[in-house]
Amino acid sequence: MNKMIKLTLAAALAASSVAAVADIKPFEAVEYRKGIFKAVKWQFGPMGDMVKGKIDYDATEFSRRATNLAALSKMPLEGFRPGTYASATSALPSIEDDWQTFADTMSQFQDNTAALEQAAASGNMDEIKPAFIKVARTCKSCHDKFKD
Amino acid sequence: MNKMIKLTLAAALAASSVAAVADIKPFEAVEYRKGIFKAVKWQFGPMGDMVKGKIDYDATEFSRRATNLAALSKMPLEGFRPGTYASATSALPSIEDDWQTFADTMSQFQDNTAALEQAAASGNMDEIKPAFIKVARTCKSCHDKFKD
Repeated sequence: MNKMIKLTLAAALAASSVAAVADIKPFEAVEYRKGIFKAVKWQFGPMGDMVKGKIDYDATEFSRRATNLAALSKMPLEGFRPGTYASATSALPSIEDDWQTFADTMSQFQDNTAALEQAAASGNMDEIKPAFIKVARTCKSCHDKFKD
Repeated sequence: MNKMIKLTLAAALAASSVAAVADIKPFEAVEYRKGIFKAVKWQFGPMGDMVKGKIDYDATEFSRRATNLAALSKMPLEGFRPGTYASATSALPSIEDDWQTFADTMSQFQDNTAALEQAAASGNMDEIKPAFIKVARTCKSCHDKFKD
């Protein structure tokens, strides 16, 4: 997907979410996105243990988790709504100030988890490992910029 | 999928999860499954508002949420781990005592959300509405039996 289409998609998504869930309270948006990231961590953790060799590599389980992760990557963005950076969140207000960079990083997260899902289907750790590392780096780069 | 395959899948899933996330603490499993259900609610809410006509039906948004919901439906089961029914959860210990019924209901949840995703793609509310109601009833039947 080229960058322009992605930006348009992100804007459409944000607009449609605002229209549909206008009566959502800030704490609900915070709980929603926190819930998604808890699930991301739950799925990603055992994948990391397999990549590092801390537990045996199980191709079926790894693939299942990679699919879950790719699906989850599409969900958090709409939880980062205006006025939800005050408390009970480690998300920084800079997300609002620099929305486009944040949305772009979320797009990278989606692209990289989709690539990891595809690599996982190969069952080949030589393909999986770099794809996994790319996802981990996307997480880190976003946390460094936008997480307290 | 026939019932026997589903039971085998559920057992395999449970077994593999136990192997891979053996060092997960009970509260982490509780937080994981709660996070998933928060996301389920977030996705399902606006869909309900559209089905009921409380907000305008937006085929693209409805479909996106239906896809998210179908993906989420595959995730909570592995969070219902032994020893995670003591506190900070409204999940009843009867889940452990009657695991097979619980796992079957989760399978219905997956089947019904997959059907709703398909109906959503039609963009036809006459197809969507009954599929939506079927999902809502699956939620309720499980809550009635297994939620405090």
